Amino acid sequence: MNEALHADAAYVGWLGYRHLESEELLKSGVTWCGRVVVAEDGEVIGSAVAELMNGIESMLGIRPASSGISDGDYCIALGTFEGGNELVARTFDVATQAAIGPEGYAIRTNSEAGCIAIGASTAAGILYGVFHFLRLLGTGSTSDLESLELAENPKNGLRMINQWDNIDGSIERGYAGKSIFYLNNEITNNTERVRDYARLLASTGVNAISINNVNVHHYETMFLTDKYLPDVARLADVFRAYGIKLFLSINFASPIEIGGLSTADPLDPGVREWWVAITKQVYAAIPDFGGFLVKADSENRPGPFTYDRDHADGANMLAEALLPHGGVVIWRCFVYNCKQDWRDRSTDRARAAYDHFTPQDGRFHDNVILQIKNGPMDFQVREPVSPLFGAMESTNQMIEFQITQEYTGQQRHLCYLVPQWKEALDFETYAKEEASSVKNIINGSAYGRRYGGIAAVSNIGDDENWTGHLLAQANLYGYGRLAWDTEISAEAIAEEWARLTFGGEERLVRTIVSMLMESLSIYESYTAPLGVGWMVNPGHHYGPDVDGYEYSKWGTYHFADCHGIGVDRTVQSGTGYAGQYMGSNAYVYGSVERCPDELLLFFHHVPYTHVLHSGSTVIQHIYDSRFDGAERAEQLREDWNGLEGTLDDGLHRQVAERLKEQAEHAREWRDRMNTYFYRKSGIADKLGRKIY
Amino acid sequence: MNEALHADAAYVGWLGYRHLESEELLKSGVTWCGRVVVAEDGEVIGSAVAELMNGIESMLGIRPASSGISDGDYCIALGTFEGGNELVARTFDVATQAAIGPEGYAIRTNSEAGCIAIGASTAAGILYGVFHFLRLLGTGSTSDLESLELAENPKNGLRMINQWDNIDGSIERGYAGKSIFYLNNEITNNTERVRDYARLLASTGVNAISINNVNVHHYETMFLTDKYLPDVARLADVFRAYGIKLFLSINFASPIEIGGLSTADPLDPGVREWWVAITKQVYAAIPDFGGFLVKADSENRPGPFTYDRDHADGANMLAEALLPHGGVVIWRCFVYNCKQDWRDRSTDRARAAYDHFTPQDGRFHDNVILQIKNGPMDFQVREPVSPLFGAMESTNQMIEFQITQEYTGQQRHLCYLVPQWKEALDFETYAKEEASSVKNIINGSAYGRRYGGIAAVSNIGDDENWTGHLLAQANLYGYGRLAWDTEISAEAIAEEWARLTFGGEERLVRTIVSMLMESLSIYESYTAPLGVGWMVNPGHHYGPDVDGYEYSKWGTYHFADCHGIGVDRTVQSGTGYAGQYMGSNAYVYGSVERCPDELLLFFHHVPYTHVLHSGSTVIQHIYDSRFDGAERAEQLREDWNGLEGTLDDGLHRQVAERLKEQAEHAREWRDRMNTYFYRKSGIADKLGRKIY
Repeated sequence: MNEALHADAAYVGWLGYRHLESEELLKSGVTWCGRVVVAEDGEVIGSAVAELMNGIESMLGIRPASSGISDGDYCIALGTFEGGNELVARTFDVATQAAIGPEGYAIRTNSEAGCIAIGASTAAGILYGVFHFLRLLGTGSTSDLESLELAENPKNGLRMINQWDNIDGSIERGYAGKSIFYLNNEITNNTERVRDYARLLASTGVNAISINNVNVHHYETMFLTDKYLPDVARLADVFRAYGIKLFLSINFASPIEIGGLSTADPLDPGVREWWVAITKQVYAAIPDFGGFLVKADSENRPGPFTYDRDHADGANMLAEALLPHGGVVIWRCFVYNCKQDWRDRSTDRARAAYDHFTPQDGRFHDNVILQIKNGPMDFQVREPVSPLFGAMESTNQMIEFQITQEYTGQQRHLCYLVPQWKEALDFETYAKEEASSVKNIINGSAYGRRYGGIAAVSNIGDDENWTGHLLAQANLYGYGRLAWDTEISAEAIAEEWARLTFGGEERLVRTIVSMLMESLSIYESYTAPLGVGWMVNPGHHYGPDVDGYEYSKWGTYHFADCHGIGVDRTVQSGTGYAGQYMGSNAYVYGSVERCPDELLLFFHHVPYTHVLHSGSTVIQHIYDSRFDGAERAEQLREDWNGLEGTLDDGLHRQVAERLKEQAEHAREWRDRMNTYFYRKSGIADKLGRKIY
Repeated sequence: MNEALHADAAYVGWLGYRHLESEELLKSGVTWCGRVVVAEDGEVIGSAVAELMNGIESMLGIRPASSGISDGDYCIALGTFEGGNELVARTFDVATQAAIGPEGYAIRTNSEAGCIAIGASTAAGILYGVFHFLRLLGTGSTSDLESLELAENPKNGLRMINQWDNIDGSIERGYAGKSIFYLNNEITNNTERVRDYARLLASTGVNAISINNVNVHHYETMFLTDKYLPDVARLADVFRAYGIKLFLSINFASPIEIGGLSTADPLDPGVREWWVAITKQVYAAIPDFGGFLVKADSENRPGPFTYDRDHADGANMLAEALLPHGGVVIWRCFVYNCKQDWRDRSTDRARAAYDHFTPQDGRFHDNVILQIKNGPMDFQVREPVSPLFGAMESTNQMIEFQITQEYTGQQRHLCYLVPQWKEALDFETYAKEEASSVKNIINGSAYGRRYGGIAAVSNIGDDENWTGHLLAQANLYGYGRLAWDTEISAEAIAEEWARLTFGGEERLVRTIVSMLMESLSIYESYTAPLGVGWMVNPGHHYGPDVDGYEYSKWGTYHFADCHGIGVDRTVQSGTGYAGQYMGSNAYVYGSVERCPDELLLFFHHVPYTHVLHSGSTVIQHIYDSRFDGAERAEQLREDWNGLEGTLDDGLHRQVAERLKEQAEHAREWRDRMNTYFYRKSGIADKLGRKIY
């Protein structure tokens, strides 16, 4: 294939709508898809219809006719239940219609009426239904269209993407080029690319986006003002057509920085009025504006602490300004002492979010949601789940993941993160007798909370393939799918993505799925061992530096000495962090005997000779897994190289280059980790392998 | 005092010409200095006369008259021996005149003739003589002027300053603000400041300066062209008036980058012609241009290796272009593999300069000088002297020091470097039976070489006080003085500088001299131990990071494990570096028993329990000296605080702030070093002090 095609293939990602390979499905598709009947109009419906028409044309090779009513031939009928499409109304009974929530949809083949109906309560539901229908075709997960019958509602209300983009075009923790939103302190005019991003997101079920970095700097603070608001509104228009609400990260000190006030005290009447007024102004420009995302009193960002107020004071002030417009405040819980003295063993960063927020349970307004990182530290390859989940019965909570691979290989290493996220969502908090796993906390069901959901930091930039590493598209796709349906397996998502992106050749799909599913465990096995985290180069966080954060102010230590390693977070002798968990979690994590191997060093300081559940000692585990991880990284490369010829050469090549770098870099990790621990412990590898 | 005066006092530095405190000397000065008799003119003479007049006025409170001949009253007579000043000619006998070399001078009180004569062979000599005379007054090192009788010649031909300034205004390894030469890709118009710098340099005896970074980037490459050459010539004019020749650092790839050629091969006739032509052009603009300073095939800079040529090929090509104009090539020997694999124990960066250059002895043209860093690594607080000195009988060599404190506290810590430089200059190479210490190698006397001398990387920027840390001015002053006369003691230089800068109050002078003289040993005692070097944060090189360079590509390792530390550079079992030394140096360094403690870990890998000559073990030495160093840093602060009120408040405060930071940072060094080694060795401090 030529270069333009390579580029295209990487750019269109999982929305490439490859021509169907299955003759049976193709035939069935051609039969049913000759006409699209739609009785409504509107932006979102328009997006749905356009997507359906293009998808059908591309996959089936026919351009469907489109009309407001059926001509009697087979057709696809789209519409809201009340929207006047008689085929839709006929196809779904009252019970089905009642079961479909605001963003849900039903799809059913109505042989009698000669249609496949996609019905929903709202236009957004139709859009999601269309993407589902196209996915069915694209993945070949139905052999024909004769008897479709399904209904879906999203498991989470908010399914959000956080862009950490800055208006200068840079992206904090971005590994795929520059921002698609900003350039040189201006908001982009290239809404084409933003629209393509909106399509990609909507196709996975994402319904919200914050478009600027949570660290809100000088210019971004002015997004609320006339200087930028009209341009922000243009972006909101683009996303609105795909059912996505726009949010802004705000600067807590805005009343001072752009309001000309002398304080940002959340209890000051002038400050409160200022927020009411500016919020009104935002809604005048963007009537369906989502709300504010706030990083306050965190890593040197301003916040209510300056005025001796607390998080609830700060969040509630904003919530009151947003309430009349239906907006929400998303308040991040990533709050800790980032100027710790490494000599101080009494402070434990892992404790911080819980210690800060649980005392305020019940004080946050109903339109405030606390956004909590999956783990207590910061997106390490392995952390326990934050004990804050479920610990605030009267507070809305949502979880924050990081799609961008800050600590997981920066899109130069393959690391499919959906299994990690699944594990966090499935984690049982023991907050209640039953149904209190994290997914039930954050979707609001456990405590009957109105708002909840998932947010994640985007991994895209203006690289042609969006994500730098082509296979990292699977993380963006997988995030959206998982946020929609926390029950789908990581493997099923991987397979969907592989089929949509690369077509259905079985060896190709099996290999890619297997590579993705192995990748997290491979990455973990050559980087920081047994849950202890960090061991990366300070600042940019790429590559090994075992002591890189050991004497820093960031509260991230491993305490390795010549005898042992790990952080004692027990109640008995350590920081007490393990006691923040509920039920048996506190017991299991607090016990060196019961703590799972993969988190041992997060919770306990043990000798190198400590025997793991696996039967290996800590030191031998370090050696074994580093050697194994580097070998498996090499195997990933070989597996991919074996696919040469079965997919587009350009796509193959770009991934092959990254996997080559990964294999080399995994060896560097292996050798640095092994040498460090061999030098420190003096204990030789039992197998006598080469340690430098 | 007011702020303007503080600033002034810091700015004028040792050329403040404070009013004399000694009544006797004042009286004698007033008697002799009422008139300056000078029969010659010219720029350099003009500078000398102006300096003399101003110095006298400022120190003695009288404005001397000036005339071409004496009026019979007491006077100061200046002139070259052949310059027509009859007083000068009369005062110095033939033997004295014959003993004065091109830059030397004689000063003599001729009571009979009623004059103090300053005579020299050249205008530059007069300038140096004037500065000497003013220094005599300023330091009060003569009680009166009745019987002056002295003659001096510089010990080194080249006494050079290397600026590592970039045209964007930044300074590589600069810690005192931005460049005084450049701003925003232009050469400065503020020649006032450049002139003041030239004065400061000339007053210490410096006679050469390269004005741009040895890493020559895009714009600086064009200094040789019409785009910048007229501005470069303007700077040359400024320096010329103070007897200082201007050099340029050049880019070896210039023929390609600015010449439009396809190669920079030094044996290519077109390339050679290009250099001849461009050099001619430079001399047309700057007739007394000094020559080229070259960093080639070093740290990714281009060089002859690209064309399978060697250093001699490269240097000789440039030498041939410079020869007709009397210019020289200064070719840096800082050449090593900067992409080393830390796993590779067979490569030793310390060996590199010797291995690269000694085989080429005799091949360099006579107007090529090799510029060799004092140590084999890179300006660490403690290194052995480079074994390359004296190892090339038929090659001009000069030594390179670093005044800017890259690895010695970055002008936030006090570190008076003259003792370190003295030690290097006094180092006996055993290259010959006698008189082959480094100072005799580099001044050319040992092997009868025509060219030689000293270069050093400047520590100044556009900070008001030039050097960031006011006391770091002592390093700039001391460098020049030492380059002029390698026999003066570090302490004598410190005292001169203190008296000139702060006046003659005895407690003040004694305290400052003592602080300066202690400072190197203090800095060494809390940073990397026993000569092993590095242990700093990568990149910027400030502050402790024991493993910061341990797994890097830079060839800078300490190999600490749970048993011991150090680099085996012996011939028997190590890299063989110790064998590059001559005579007993090879023997002493190669022997773990005989190697001096302070270099032990540079040459040997030993257990922590190894007993030093001091009687302490390595590990206990590490603890003891870290604790001691931090205490002594605190003592520096207290000593300085005790001076409050005895000097200008503004000057006191700026130094007090730096010493406070140093004391705090020394404790951080202490704790990180001690914790690192305690964790690694498992051996407790015998005195049971707090190790975290």
